[in-house]
Amino acid sequence: MDYKQLAKTYETPLYIYDFNQIKKRYLELKNSFAGRKSLVCYAVKANSNLSLLKLLANLGSGFDCVSFNEVRRAILAGADRYKIIYSGVGKQDSEIKDAINANILMINVESSAELDRIEEIAKSLDKIARISIRVNPNIDPKTHPYISTGLNENKFGVNINEAKKMYIKAKNSQFLNPIGIHFHIGSQLIDIMPVHEAAQIVSNLMRELKALEIDIKFFDIGGGVGIRYKDEKNVDLYEYAQGILSALKGQDETIVCEPGRFIVGESGVLLTKVLYEKVNNDKRFVVVDGAMNDLLRPSLYGAYHEIEALADGLNLSKCDIVGPICESGDFLGKDRDMPELKSGDLLVVKCAGAYGFGMASNYNSRCKAAEVAIEDGKARLIRKREKFEDLVANEIEFIGE
Amino acid sequence: MDYKQLAKTYETPLYIYDFNQIKKRYLELKNSFAGRKSLVCYAVKANSNLSLLKLLANLGSGFDCVSFNEVRRAILAGADRYKIIYSGVGKQDSEIKDAINANILMINVESSAELDRIEEIAKSLDKIARISIRVNPNIDPKTHPYISTGLNENKFGVNINEAKKMYIKAKNSQFLNPIGIHFHIGSQLIDIMPVHEAAQIVSNLMRELKALEIDIKFFDIGGGVGIRYKDEKNVDLYEYAQGILSALKGQDETIVCEPGRFIVGESGVLLTKVLYEKVNNDKRFVVVDGAMNDLLRPSLYGAYHEIEALADGLNLSKCDIVGPICESGDFLGKDRDMPELKSGDLLVVKCAGAYGFGMASNYNSRCKAAEVAIEDGKARLIRKREKFEDLVANEIEFIGE
Repeated sequence: MDYKQLAKTYETPLYIYDFNQIKKRYLELKNSFAGRKSLVCYAVKANSNLSLLKLLANLGSGFDCVSFNEVRRAILAGADRYKIIYSGVGKQDSEIKDAINANILMINVESSAELDRIEEIAKSLDKIARISIRVNPNIDPKTHPYISTGLNENKFGVNINEAKKMYIKAKNSQFLNPIGIHFHIGSQLIDIMPVHEAAQIVSNLMRELKALEIDIKFFDIGGGVGIRYKDEKNVDLYEYAQGILSALKGQDETIVCEPGRFIVGESGVLLTKVLYEKVNNDKRFVVVDGAMNDLLRPSLYGAYHEIEALADGLNLSKCDIVGPICESGDFLGKDRDMPELKSGDLLVVKCAGAYGFGMASNYNSRCKAAEVAIEDGKARLIRKREKFEDLVANEIEFIGE
Repeated sequence: MDYKQLAKTYETPLYIYDFNQIKKRYLELKNSFAGRKSLVCYAVKANSNLSLLKLLANLGSGFDCVSFNEVRRAILAGADRYKIIYSGVGKQDSEIKDAINANILMINVESSAELDRIEEIAKSLDKIARISIRVNPNIDPKTHPYISTGLNENKFGVNINEAKKMYIKAKNSQFLNPIGIHFHIGSQLIDIMPVHEAAQIVSNLMRELKALEIDIKFFDIGGGVGIRYKDEKNVDLYEYAQGILSALKGQDETIVCEPGRFIVGESGVLLTKVLYEKVNNDKRFVVVDGAMNDLLRPSLYGAYHEIEALADGLNLSKCDIVGPICESGDFLGKDRDMPELKSGDLLVVKCAGAYGFGMASNYNSRCKAAEVAIEDGKARLIRKREKFEDLVANEIEFIGE
């Protein structure tokens, strides 16, 4: 990829996505469930760019959305409504109403109180809400605590007993139709055994529900398949799928999965430019034009992103790669071996396709970066760089005297 | 304050600022240096709302900006250009050029390499750049590592010896005019002794520079005065000022200070609405409509914000107050005593005026909150709530086929 040309054309910091690789990743996962009814619902929160959603919609992908604005994005991008799932622990009444009216596949329910609200709202609309219930199987996913979601101490889902009560309630309601069952134990999972354990637990519950004539049609295993940021081993998709199939032996539900990071994580980079080198006593800093407002993961999770220098310099030495934001938490990498760098040299921050742009802010009144897609060797802009005017657009009319 | 009425009029989540208190805080600090030439430069990064900047500009405040977009905000809000300082470790060439052309008070320089760039750019414009140099006094400010900035291991400023060389270079350049000296050791300082120590170190350097006929006119002590989030003791402004004055005995520079959090932190709240209560096994969660995209501090720094429930319920019990975002890192408070709450009850997240809205993102495609000012008992909108259309405005024209 000709990063220098891209930097020249679109400036930096710049998010660049490899659309061919995104396609490939989608198809790999889809094919791992070949011979079985399956629906891959891309997790929009990982990267919600409309052109990227369109690419996946064209492949037949479904979409897992965690706000009604994400549902709006999916629909704008051409998604089939019967392939859209709406999840999340804190749905607003207006969002529930919009979701029922939008006639999407189903709403993932996260609590008893929410089930009651959905029933009330469906009743007021005189419609039937298709739902699934997120079951919390109390499995430790062995990932970062902030993205672990399957333990009882997390805010997500309900435990097995509560789920059972909720399904019975839903079956007996004329405004609810329980068609799915759902779990999601965490993100960036490298060891997939916990997913298989969870699948077995939830599959057992589903069999019990069927005995009660609750006819589950979608078995939603969530997402969370990890990627290789540093030295993680790659998840074997065949094994991943086999473990799920084995938990579902004798059952014929459609398997739903909700990959986000797996599809887009390794397919994106953040391109950033060196502004200055500086040494404070013995400590070397490379100051670049990308910052924590562009990519929050290093600062928020202590996440590692490989950083490659596009420079001829030799003499590797350790440095921190830091952004212009006025806090020490603003770094992209720490203690990295880098050649001598000069102003204008480019650095490629790898594996930034997921939870990169989507978590971007305007901290320090910095404009959000532009986004570019590369497809079949051609680059095209998929989101314009923000301008100062964008930052103040919602404020300027209110300046007092 | 009638939070219920505000929630009704402007909806939630909502940032609310007490403009009277902001004024009071500004004047307190300004007056603590009474009888001495002083310039209070509000740190725009803490909260950059245009109406808030206008309020301060009307009081005669200067502005400390860390990006040229912040300078633009200050100018839009009516700031006097000769009261604007432009700081930051990663200034772009275009920003330096704009800052010189804008004829602001001075540029705070953070490295030798940056000094060279400023000189080159000033030369190309045939102008003289007024500068100060940020000296890193190697003092431990005893605050959160992410907002500690005065140690040699931080990316900020230069050490004493390097500063001296840079001042001599600047004095000998026909395009640079070194008029200030600057330090800033960290944010949310409760113990102010380290500031006094730093002031003494930097004051000694300034005396040496004067002996070299480098005529410093502005002694910039940075910001960092802490506030009371929980049980921190209040900083005594008289003591704070006296320690600085004593370090400057016999000198007559204008004292510049750069308060951000001190001015706006306690003057703002985030108002949020309860969506659901849920209990996962024995763990109680209150799900609210505000989230880490609205207020990142709890998640990023583990910061404590007091949360008050506007509800009649009794039976206090411990709970986590969490947002709708799909990660366990999305919380506003943990293990808080709260009464029984029902959907629609309001919670007030205190001390959210600084580094609240300014760090907000659109994670999970959530719209940024609205902002409201209260002044002399009257409320007025100072930033409109974002709409879905705002989120996709820079993308929609690029959706492929």
